[in-house]
Amino acid sequence: MIAGPGSCWQLTRTVRFGDTDAAGVMHFHQLLRWCHEAWEESLERSGVAAAAVFPGGDPAVGDGGPSVALPIVHCSADFRRPLRCGDRLQVLLSPRRLDGGSFEVSYAFARDGEPVAWGLLRHRAIEAASRRPCDLPPVLEGWLEAAVASADPG
Amino acid sequence: MIAGPGSCWQLTRTVRFGDTDAAGVMHFHQLLRWCHEAWEESLERSGVAAAAVFPGGDPAVGDGGPSVALPIVHCSADFRRPLRCGDRLQVLLSPRRLDGGSFEVSYAFARDGEPVAWGLLRHRAIEAASRRPCDLPPVLEGWLEAAVASADPG
Amino acid sequence: MIAGPGSCWQLTRTVRFGDTDAAGVMHFHQLLRWCHEAWEESLERSGVAAAAVFPGGDPAVGDGGPSVALPIVHCSADFRRPLRCGDRLQVLLSPRRLDGGSFEVSYAFARDGEPVAWGLLRHRAIEAASRRPCDLPPVLEGWLEAAVASADPG
Amino acid sequence: MIAGPGSCWQLTRTVRFGDTDAAGVMHFHQLLRWCHEAWEESLERSGVAAAAVFPGGDPAVGDGGPSVALPIVHCSADFRRPLRCGDRLQVLLSPRRLDGGSFEVSYAFARDGEPVAWGLLRHRAIEAASRRPCDLPPVLEGWLEAAVASADPG
Repeated sequence: MIAGPGSCWQLTRTVRFGDTDAAGVMHFHQLLRWCHEAWEESLERSGVAAAAVFPGGDPAVGDGGPSVALPIVHCSADFRRPLRCGDRLQVLLSPRRLDGGSFEVSYAFARDGEPVAWGLLRHRAIEAASRRPCDLPPVLEGWLEAAVASADPG
Repeated sequence: MIAGPGSCWQLTRTVRFGDTDAAGVMHFHQLLRWCHEAWEESLERSGVAAAAVFPGGDPAVGDGGPSVALPIVHCSADFRRPLRCGDRLQVLLSPRRLDGGSFEVSYAFARDGEPVAWGLLRHRAIEAASRRPCDLPPVLEGWLEAAVASADPG
Repeated sequence: MIAGPGSCWQLTRTVRFGDTDAAGVMHFHQLLRWCHEAWEESLERSGVAAAAVFPGGDPAVGDGGPSVALPIVHCSADFRRPLRCGDRLQVLLSPRRLDGGSFEVSYAFARDGEPVAWGLLRHRAIEAASRRPCDLPPVLEGWLEAAVASADPG
Repeated sequence: MIAGPGSCWQLTRTVRFGDTDAAGVMHFHQLLRWCHEAWEESLERSGVAAAAVFPGGDPAVGDGGPSVALPIVHCSADFRRPLRCGDRLQVLLSPRRLDGGSFEVSYAFARDGEPVAWGLLRHRAIEAASRRPCDLPPVLEGWLEAAVASADPG
């Protein structure tokens, strides 16, 4: 059991061959990619469209994407067990609001219930045009509130 | 409709933010990664364990992995439409045996039924220890036969 | 010796640990990444600024990047020898104009003079805003002409 | 000036197009890849062969690679400035021995002398076959001593 207070969004992920290196196990930085993709999946599952959070809208329709960007200002990861091609992992997301303009999500990875790795991504809201710090956009505040409301009370 | 004669294994894939580049759309070589991961998923779905095909077994148990490796000797991709973060794609796999020691899989990607990209991966069986060409391992022959048997007759 | 008629831009590349997979050798799709990065390096060496070709200019200065984008519409690769961590490769670029709006670059990889792999990237010019086909931008025409002028006549 | 006490190995790195995402700047986890590649380059520059540190030796010659592996057990990164395609970065490595079986390297990234990002990779020595903790291999001890000897005394 890897969930704790504040946990929500349990997803799954399978280690793929291209995630490994010549030591035969997952190459470390792939875990950070998995964290970000798990965050995207959690947004999707809570009904937040990718276009509401991420730039990349169709330039033909004159839409430069959301006015607020959420770049990562800090990340970390800890690796406890080697992860092998074909391993099926559980990924548990625990989001946390830090202040009006930033939040972080911790990601606990387990295999057959045994903790194997952790990741952390910290985001700060900025105005996409000026890159000046700003408040979290409403869509993110909503996602955070839903996360807290659904969290295991511990 | 993107399926044709010989098609089987219809999977799905969502474009993630890290798959894009500063042009706002999928960075081209990610598609080749998706193809390989779709192949791994099709093996999994047909009951083939990753450890039966891919090296990376636990060295502590003295298992150096399968005796036959299936490296890619050729790949190609064609890109017809820009793919954006959040796009939900259908991926259709069409495997084909080329000779006793090689096979290829073509991957047709569609969005809302419209073809957007194609990929092709060609594999050749080699003895893992000597890297000499050899016959396809039985597990792969089984997967290919299952694919052909389940294929849309066109 | 891997150069032939039309070749120019000889670069080098070292295989890194993260480029390998659990089979102990380069994971196939990394080669396509290397091709694109070699193209970027060749532009740089011929005095073409990245900002003149690639989007990603600073949004704070109101510059949406070049008006013409050069997306890849086709790519392929052939793999003849396994590539291992630490291998030092020579990369030979051979650009070719296809028509007024497209060009391709072939990339020959060698180790100690022995050919080990090939890649091909085909680009088509489009207006960045509308994504409609257009002519190659002058900066690319200049790079192509310089390439042809410097090529080994064979 | 970004060097401090204990710093050594100043390398360079150019941000490539495939390192960016649809926000127009470097996608965060690429920085961790750059850190590892900078470490590999520093080993190379100090005369340590890749095959002495990394697995992936030719299986045909019956060499399973070095008996000690150095997996990453922790990593982190901080991002202060957006990094754009074509940016030329200085990378300063500061290695540090933690105990008989582990060490870490911090990576300071600067652009035109201005700090833009930091990374940290912590490695622990294990026996490759058993994955049991062990002492750092002599080749790594030598690299660490050379690093300390060449470091700016501050």
